[in-house]
Amino acid sequence: MSRERITLFDTTLRDGAQTTGVDFSLEDKKAIATLLDRLGIDYVEGGYPGANPLDTAFFAEKRTKNAKFTAFGMTKRAGRSASNDPGVAALLEAEADAICFVAKSWDYHVRVALETTPEENLAGIHESVEAARAKGREVLVDCEHFFDGYKANPDYALSCVKTAYEAGARWIVLCDTNGGTLPHEVTEIVTAVSKVVPGRHLGIHAHDDCGCAVANSLAAVEAGARQIQGTLNGLGERCGNANLITLIGALKLKDGYAARFDLGVTDDALGQLTHVSRQVDEILNRQPNRHAPFVGASAFATKAGIHASAVLKDPRTYEHVEPEVVGNARRLLVSDQGGQSNILAELKRCGFALERGDARIARVLDEVKRKEAQGFAFEGADASFYVLVKRMLGEVPAFFDVERFSVNVERRFNAVGELVTASEAIVKVRVGDEVLISAAEGNGPVNALDVALRKDLGKYQNLIQDLELVDYKVRIYQGGSDAVTRVLIEFTDGSGERWTTIGVSPNIIDASFQALTDSMVYKLLKAGASL
Amino acid sequence: MSRERITLFDTTLRDGAQTTGVDFSLEDKKAIATLLDRLGIDYVEGGYPGANPLDTAFFAEKRTKNAKFTAFGMTKRAGRSASNDPGVAALLEAEADAICFVAKSWDYHVRVALETTPEENLAGIHESVEAARAKGREVLVDCEHFFDGYKANPDYALSCVKTAYEAGARWIVLCDTNGGTLPHEVTEIVTAVSKVVPGRHLGIHAHDDCGCAVANSLAAVEAGARQIQGTLNGLGERCGNANLITLIGALKLKDGYAARFDLGVTDDALGQLTHVSRQVDEILNRQPNRHAPFVGASAFATKAGIHASAVLKDPRTYEHVEPEVVGNARRLLVSDQGGQSNILAELKRCGFALERGDARIARVLDEVKRKEAQGFAFEGADASFYVLVKRMLGEVPAFFDVERFSVNVERRFNAVGELVTASEAIVKVRVGDEVLISAAEGNGPVNALDVALRKDLGKYQNLIQDLELVDYKVRIYQGGSDAVTRVLIEFTDGSGERWTTIGVSPNIIDASFQALTDSMVYKLLKAGASL
Repeated sequence: MSRERITLFDTTLRDGAQTTGVDFSLEDKKAIATLLDRLGIDYVEGGYPGANPLDTAFFAEKRTKNAKFTAFGMTKRAGRSASNDPGVAALLEAEADAICFVAKSWDYHVRVALETTPEENLAGIHESVEAARAKGREVLVDCEHFFDGYKANPDYALSCVKTAYEAGARWIVLCDTNGGTLPHEVTEIVTAVSKVVPGRHLGIHAHDDCGCAVANSLAAVEAGARQIQGTLNGLGERCGNANLITLIGALKLKDGYAARFDLGVTDDALGQLTHVSRQVDEILNRQPNRHAPFVGASAFATKAGIHASAVLKDPRTYEHVEPEVVGNARRLLVSDQGGQSNILAELKRCGFALERGDARIARVLDEVKRKEAQGFAFEGADASFYVLVKRMLGEVPAFFDVERFSVNVERRFNAVGELVTASEAIVKVRVGDEVLISAAEGNGPVNALDVALRKDLGKYQNLIQDLELVDYKVRIYQGGSDAVTRVLIEFTDGSGERWTTIGVSPNIIDASFQALTDSMVYKLLKAGASL
Repeated sequence: MSRERITLFDTTLRDGAQTTGVDFSLEDKKAIATLLDRLGIDYVEGGYPGANPLDTAFFAEKRTKNAKFTAFGMTKRAGRSASNDPGVAALLEAEADAICFVAKSWDYHVRVALETTPEENLAGIHESVEAARAKGREVLVDCEHFFDGYKANPDYALSCVKTAYEAGARWIVLCDTNGGTLPHEVTEIVTAVSKVVPGRHLGIHAHDDCGCAVANSLAAVEAGARQIQGTLNGLGERCGNANLITLIGALKLKDGYAARFDLGVTDDALGQLTHVSRQVDEILNRQPNRHAPFVGASAFATKAGIHASAVLKDPRTYEHVEPEVVGNARRLLVSDQGGQSNILAELKRCGFALERGDARIARVLDEVKRKEAQGFAFEGADASFYVLVKRMLGEVPAFFDVERFSVNVERRFNAVGELVTASEAIVKVRVGDEVLISAAEGNGPVNALDVALRKDLGKYQNLIQDLELVDYKVRIYQGGSDAVTRVLIEFTDGSGERWTTIGVSPNIIDASFQALTDSMVYKLLKAGASL
């Protein structure tokens, strides 16, 4: 039985631009367009040329090799012809393969938001589609607020769809713009629409305001639609658009879907799914969602000891898909709920070749439990776990020794009578026979200490030069009778690898110091440094 | 037409404990149990007594007033009677209204993970349920991996369900433990099960590994199930459990559901939904998901200018529900009309009798926006908001002025050659005509500064004597181009009242200083101090 084709339409660069705190630069857009192209996405909606200078510049040339480069904009305004409408003109000028017009399909909106008549709106749809077809573009029409419009006035909503179809639109996309439609309603409504326009011309554009964007997209496909619009990592305003990453995972890997549908995404490209997702977060400097389906850092992470032994016996018992096919990895978290199975798996994952029964495993487990009782938590602090094990195995050379540090924060009046706060650190480090004293300022005490620690490490300085602190988390932990501070610091270096270290102390500077030095040792081990 | 009752079962404190990076303290569990109780949740699954000391301690007494306090554990192990099984014994000893047994329902698991026979497993279910019933507990049975088990061997899966039901379980919960089941499969399978056991005894426990946990829960309800299990904020291992916050919003507010089902959650409790969600994140020091349906900070935030004017004309055009009914707020990032409504409500809540149109409201709003742009967030920092408003109204006397502080953390060798870390602070404060210099030690820099600040406040010293710092939270906030540190400090005094203040700065000591001094001013205002 041959599979039906589902096309994927990505609007990260247009609808995703509405995400709170997201601002695409031109370079960001180019980079993401390339990621989408390589993933096998069919349509890349690059933005809204004419609406702002950056998008107009982005459409000065086609930015994809295989994907259809698509421009978004509104249907012509009432009272003008399509050829005299500046918005439409901007779309037609854009170097795009396809144009996606957003059209009103809820009569209430036509009257209140557009302040025009239902008939005028239909004419606007018809003429805009025609104008774009006349210029050789493929045309899509996003029927805005379709589901609410259908519930309020089904005949009018359907007439918008039909008008677009009859004018020559290749795709008519039913948009749940408010995000308030539920899956069973999507099923019912898309089924009804598919009696008027064939499903192979229908698309779905869902939002996540009820946590059902992915399910709504799947429901629409079940009801006959053959295009899914969404964004990478579910970016988008309010609660986001349908997450294309999740949908690609589900449609490629779940029984029933994989056999029925072809996404145009190869298995190789699928293996890059996790990488694509992380790259988008990197480009936008957003905290990755570690709980994201398929690609999240925790998507295949098991904590409980009872699960861990079962997973090792047969991963099918606890995993719905194999993490490697989407470029992710299984993680058995080291925790005081785990036991030898967890530790063994974690040791293997970190590259230690210890076998079950090795006496050293019990010693590592004891040390982990001892430190966890003090407030350490090694899940989420891989690099500190790695350094701990290496120490237990006697494989950490005495690279350096911090004999003393002093960190000062002072708030005082400056020369012009302003109150300013200054942070300084002094560090005394022994490296082999050398004793080095370094001082540094910082925007805070931890920053000052970090800079001072890494200012002069003698013969190892070149190896730690490219270390960069990228994230800093603090948690007060009630361990035993006293509160202690748990600090997690995430680092990167020139290689793009990211790792996290942990420090625990009642004193936040002390805890930070532990995490900072652990990271330096980790980097030196990684770099193969020797005494 | 009378509505059918859907019961809500929360497993934040049990399944949610498996979340990467989450560690509940006893106090955390008590606080969350109280939140759940007040929300109107029917069952609060408090943990796994007998599996770890904290959970055993948590079940030393009943922790809810109205909700059924529920203990989780495994069915009896093969080769023992229920009365001789230590796991079951621990459950029966717990101070719980209900016991939720997790049982295998996939024959593959029975053989490979449990290493026993299908019949032995059924006997285990039967005897465990009976034993708990004999002790007067309500019994629920979680059929683990139910959907995968049903797909592999429907007869065996159904026999597990029937066995539990016939032994007297009040609820048999179908668990999608791997999270890989899709909504249309849930519909099909739950429908089939409901022919064997009535839907009013069936529950659904979904995970979000395909982004469909909420939709799966709704699909199960549509197919007849009447209990939903989930967690607050979708906490849980891997990709999390079904998000009860989202489900409460959808079931209370969406047409079709609100008319058909009663959740046992009052409209007043619904109005606390956002607060509950944020409190959970506060307690666990987790970054809130601003894109969360209904309760996220951005859930009703409209960025596009075109939407904003339409929203102002009629919110129904762009919002699927009204934000206020779930205790959230519309954020119009381009208008101050929505802002004034928010501030007015907040002012009233803090006891300021300002009426709409008072010119001072706009000044307060501007100051709040100015500070929020710097990284301040006044939700969760009531006392700082109170002090800010009092300042804007000119009602804060110049109690004291910190002219200078210096905080030092030093790690050095002590007299006996041990490396110790010491923290000291010096503070110079002007109180009226007096200039007071105080020094203090502390277990960390913030503690030292706190002690020094409150060591000698001249004529006000007796008023701040009983201040006690009870909680300290730090979060790195990406505001604009630089990271800033946001510190929240919770205080109490002799009266039992607790309040929270906030400080924001790139420098954590500076941020702490702001929060500490805000709290002192708050206390002095509260005490009616005058110059």
